Amino acid sequence: MNKNLNIKSLIIDKPLKLDCGQTIVNFPLAYETYGSLNEKKDNAILVFHALTGDQFVSGLNPITKKDGWWSYAVGSGKAIDTDKYFIICANVIGGCLGSLGPSNINPDTNKIYGTTFPIITINDMVNAQYNLLEFFKIEKLFAVIGGSMGGMQVLQFVSNFPNKAEVAIPIATTSNHSAQNIAFNELGRQSIMADTNWLSGDYSNQNKNPNKGLSVARMAAHITYLSKNGLQEKFGRKLQERDDLKFSFDADFQIESYLRYQGSVFVDRFDANSYLYITRAMDYFDLIKQHGGNLSNAFTDTKTKFLVISFTSDWLYPTSENKEIVIALNAIGADVGFVEIESDKGHDSFLLNTPKFLDTLKDFINTSYPKNK
Amino acid sequence: MNKNLNIKSLIIDKPLKLDCGQTIVNFPLAYETYGSLNEKKDNAILVFHALTGDQFVSGLNPITKKDGWWSYAVGSGKAIDTDKYFIICANVIGGCLGSLGPSNINPDTNKIYGTTFPIITINDMVNAQYNLLEFFKIEKLFAVIGGSMGGMQVLQFVSNFPNKAEVAIPIATTSNHSAQNIAFNELGRQSIMADTNWLSGDYSNQNKNPNKGLSVARMAAHITYLSKNGLQEKFGRKLQERDDLKFSFDADFQIESYLRYQGSVFVDRFDANSYLYITRAMDYFDLIKQHGGNLSNAFTDTKTKFLVISFTSDWLYPTSENKEIVIALNAIGADVGFVEIESDKGHDSFLLNTPKFLDTLKDFINTSYPKNK
Repeated sequence: MNKNLNIKSLIIDKPLKLDCGQTIVNFPLAYETYGSLNEKKDNAILVFHALTGDQFVSGLNPITKKDGWWSYAVGSGKAIDTDKYFIICANVIGGCLGSLGPSNINPDTNKIYGTTFPIITINDMVNAQYNLLEFFKIEKLFAVIGGSMGGMQVLQFVSNFPNKAEVAIPIATTSNHSAQNIAFNELGRQSIMADTNWLSGDYSNQNKNPNKGLSVARMAAHITYLSKNGLQEKFGRKLQERDDLKFSFDADFQIESYLRYQGSVFVDRFDANSYLYITRAMDYFDLIKQHGGNLSNAFTDTKTKFLVISFTSDWLYPTSENKEIVIALNAIGADVGFVEIESDKGHDSFLLNTPKFLDTLKDFINTSYPKNK
Repeated sequence: MNKNLNIKSLIIDKPLKLDCGQTIVNFPLAYETYGSLNEKKDNAILVFHALTGDQFVSGLNPITKKDGWWSYAVGSGKAIDTDKYFIICANVIGGCLGSLGPSNINPDTNKIYGTTFPIITINDMVNAQYNLLEFFKIEKLFAVIGGSMGGMQVLQFVSNFPNKAEVAIPIATTSNHSAQNIAFNELGRQSIMADTNWLSGDYSNQNKNPNKGLSVARMAAHITYLSKNGLQEKFGRKLQERDDLKFSFDADFQIESYLRYQGSVFVDRFDANSYLYITRAMDYFDLIKQHGGNLSNAFTDTKTKFLVISFTSDWLYPTSENKEIVIALNAIGADVGFVEIESDKGHDSFLLNTPKFLDTLKDFINTSYPKNK
């Protein structure tokens, strides 16, 4: 990973007390912006990325040389329209694309942190990103938007800063991880830790890389991002460039090649320790527990207008878990809309070209923007 | 693994031509029996085990020192009643509990096979076990029964030997693996192969063991054996012997400890290469393709009476896939019954104490046995 390539970052000089008890200060927060902040500074949208996302929401990602992760949704004339709105996205702390994370050098030791990096939480990520509002002198964001772990950050943001966003759009997310979701994340972590090159997290200082373990972790996660039916339709039992079985352990089936490919390209752009830290943050996230067992309490002080979006075939963050958020908001009479989008593409639907979803997002954003009312 | 402990086996001296083209001869087939074969030899039930099962269906398993894998179903007075029936179960070829498999010594080289072992199929497994009928001089089995991969063997057995079983009970199974099932198996294989101790399958000859990779593979599989709701009910977000999060990568949540434990005990009883070979056999199994794209053709010659059983919360071999078998049998007017059992325990329901399932199994077996009619 080349960490010096076109990475723009802010140095946060205000100390941030983390949930684990440690305090970080003078740390980098890498970010990108799209579109222009207007004079009234009322058109800013903070987009939060998911587990393996980054600040390169749209346009060319300088690391992967591919389109940004949300190019279908963000751009000129798109659902999140860069002609109208000023979009900000930051790499989460704990990440590996410029913000402070386990692959950074610890100034106290001059060595790469590895697993000496403090455990971070979704709350810490959101509090770090709040500094962007001060940096851009934005009194109130127009919107906070994110899918998956990005949706957790949306919920945490509104809970922490009830009057700092007009609109909140949590997508395909949850207020806390189910046992099955923790299980899949733990599987990924154990896969990385099982790699002898992981070296208790010290691999970078020893010029090694637990690529095999990270690749298997990515394969596991990737299966959860797609639906059973979607996989069946796309791959079924199709063979990989051959007419019959090869009677070996090579990739006979297309689904096998596909997964191996997904694993192999992932290790070129992601740090194994960041994967550990960010999945841990997701598993620790529990907005219900944070608020004494009642999710409604997370939102009692907010006037933010919500739109919760889920997808029919998402089994990682199923509609039922998204609905719990809606129910909690309804219970306190908050302004909340809910849409379940029909899609066979599973959890990944929010990242893909899902017209019904993109239209819903566009309509809600445009009709909610004060100037358009 | 101690392979010499109370392992009873038959040496098959009839050459067996495998689907891959190779022929095996004079190979061991390890088996156990429960109950007594009656004089008419009409009370024999052949039970087929699943991926990580073995011949120790009931009673004490001499390897694990725990109850046999189907102790809830097989025993005196139980659904598969050892007081009435003669139950035979063999370790599949490719396995690691006495039958010929990759951990055996190749007589040609005097070295452990490892991945020089031929790829085997469900068809090969069934053809190897057919020798048990000749050995016990059984003209016709009363029943063939199995769940999961055991169910595949049931289907393959009836297809290969249409007049050799009165009754067939495929449970929680499929006529071929979906893309998602292949994906999960490939994840397990890649996890094993990612372990530096795997050594291209030659680990036993080099006194190594890819235990970490095998453990992760088991963790992945284990998640698929349980339902999301079942996991949530049993574990939810319960913490492991502590009141609050530890802010580390230790097992904070009970589900994490549980998975780690499942992985760690598995490596003591299972061979990593056997895991590769058997998952490969499952992925290769395609009774539809074997019969020119029409599953009904697999059963045209049979008079066997079927009972297909599925479980509501089984997402690995969902009811829909079990129903496809029923539909194919109905299409040719075969004698087939179908029961979907309500259970929140996922695919594992067939191995657990699931009263409705065990009662259904018992009733069907007893009412189908000629003497009881």
